[in-house]
Amino acid sequence: MTRGFAEKYGPWAFVAGASTGIGAALSHEAARRGLNVLMMARGAARLDEAARSVRRAHGVGVRALAADLADPDIARRVREAVADLEVGLFVYNAAVAPAGRFLDVDLGKHLLSVTVNCAAPVTLCHLLGRAMVERGRGGIALVSSNGGIAGTVNFSTYNAGKAFEWILAETLWTELGESGVDVTAILVGATASPNYNSFRETLDPELCGRPDTDDALDRARSRLVNPSPPERVATALYDQLGSGPVCWADPDDEFVSRKCLAMPRGEAVAVWRGVQETSTRVPERQAL
Amino acid sequence: MTRGFAEKYGPWAFVAGASTGIGAALSHEAARRGLNVLMMARGAARLDEAARSVRRAHGVGVRALAADLADPDIARRVREAVADLEVGLFVYNAAVAPAGRFLDVDLGKHLLSVTVNCAAPVTLCHLLGRAMVERGRGGIALVSSNGGIAGTVNFSTYNAGKAFEWILAETLWTELGESGVDVTAILVGATASPNYNSFRETLDPELCGRPDTDDALDRARSRLVNPSPPERVATALYDQLGSGPVCWADPDDEFVSRKCLAMPRGEAVAVWRGVQETSTRVPERQAL
Repeated sequence: MTRGFAEKYGPWAFVAGASTGIGAALSHEAARRGLNVLMMARGAARLDEAARSVRRAHGVGVRALAADLADPDIARRVREAVADLEVGLFVYNAAVAPAGRFLDVDLGKHLLSVTVNCAAPVTLCHLLGRAMVERGRGGIALVSSNGGIAGTVNFSTYNAGKAFEWILAETLWTELGESGVDVTAILVGATASPNYNSFRETLDPELCGRPDTDDALDRARSRLVNPSPPERVATALYDQLGSGPVCWADPDDEFVSRKCLAMPRGEAVAVWRGVQETSTRVPERQAL
Repeated sequence: MTRGFAEKYGPWAFVAGASTGIGAALSHEAARRGLNVLMMARGAARLDEAARSVRRAHGVGVRALAADLADPDIARRVREAVADLEVGLFVYNAAVAPAGRFLDVDLGKHLLSVTVNCAAPVTLCHLLGRAMVERGRGGIALVSSNGGIAGTVNFSTYNAGKAFEWILAETLWTELGESGVDVTAILVGATASPNYNSFRETLDPELCGRPDTDDALDRARSRLVNPSPPERVATALYDQLGSGPVCWADPDDEFVSRKCLAMPRGEAVAVWRGVQETSTRVPERQAL
């Protein structure tokens, strides 16, 4: 499979939001499967360190692009960075998650989240998709979230942006699929990225820990204390690219998503509000 | 009910995207229920005509605000326009629907659609929601679309933006509901707005016209030749504001939405691709 992967999606992967957590794991896993990797993130120091780690571990070509996805000039920055590269795989993992009640969060933060969660993936898919279609092969993966399938509390524009990515990926899946380009959105659940651990300490243990249940809220809450390693998310995404418009890293995430999508909407929102309220800490919660 | 409506949502309604079709109907219906109406749209001439029509028909206070929702200064424009008004009802009906394959549509049009379909409703909900929460009453309605529940062809950023509005409304429904403010998204289907008639002429009659079926695609296609009058959408929205996070104007729209949400995602996309492909005309299709 690894050789087939590089033939389909090589020679270069471009990972946006690459320096930590899922994005770093996506960069490592692409390199492990034989692709060179262009890694993009905002902070140069952490990005360079992550890029060195990928280069050392896999011996592939690695480039780092320190750039801000909210920069109005981001299209030109990326166009220049990929000008001499054949990007066969584009993974969008960046996100901004303003935490707190909608009206309590600064409007500027909400609009930044619209820019990074909606406008930037549109810009980069548009920029990188054309060459893939002309080649008749390639892959695009948007890292969305189970949170995108329903409203909740404290993550208004984040969840809405994740819905945007989910439905955008579905259109690209059917449109670009005609030209041999695979597109998928992964709806991630709780993931043990660096900032997850501090969130985990705020969970109410009374509310967690019932994995083998048909109840969507219980099942979703059980995931909070069993977050996916980022490496599992990366492997699941690449393994399922080409298999459908949407995928999950964990069978419990898929169970909860499907169950909530089939519910009356008010009940689905109640589940996701319940998931957020598993934490005892209100303002700086973790986007899920 | 009409008197209760004005007490809950008066004295002023603010309708964004108000000059034609659903937006004009929403303005008329709010006035019929006893509210004064601030009508906003881009083109001053058509807007003024629509405002005169509402004033003549219902004898309420009507103001017209000619402004572009993509204007970076839109928050200030609206803040000034509502400074001396108590807006108890905010309805967001504006949309931009760039038609055509994702890669064939100019990036600028896609980004304009993100601005109008995502950023602008966030800005206006943020601006108008605070006073409603402080009053402990009010209503916010986002006009979304059945198209927001799945990808399709030719309406990539439109459908994604409609998903954004849908999920944003669900969060606002649960957060603002705590303060007595009702929020809902209406997922509209085919509606006989002015530009629908020219689209209707492009429908393949062989593919339309099976309303009494359990098949989601057949049912959705049957709606294309029986579009809702805009007045029915307006009445349905106001009647259902306060009853849940999502509503529909037509039982067939609800049937198709629920059925597609319960499907494997690839099948849901196939239904909505089938709906788009009921038309024989490719590039300038109608957003649904």
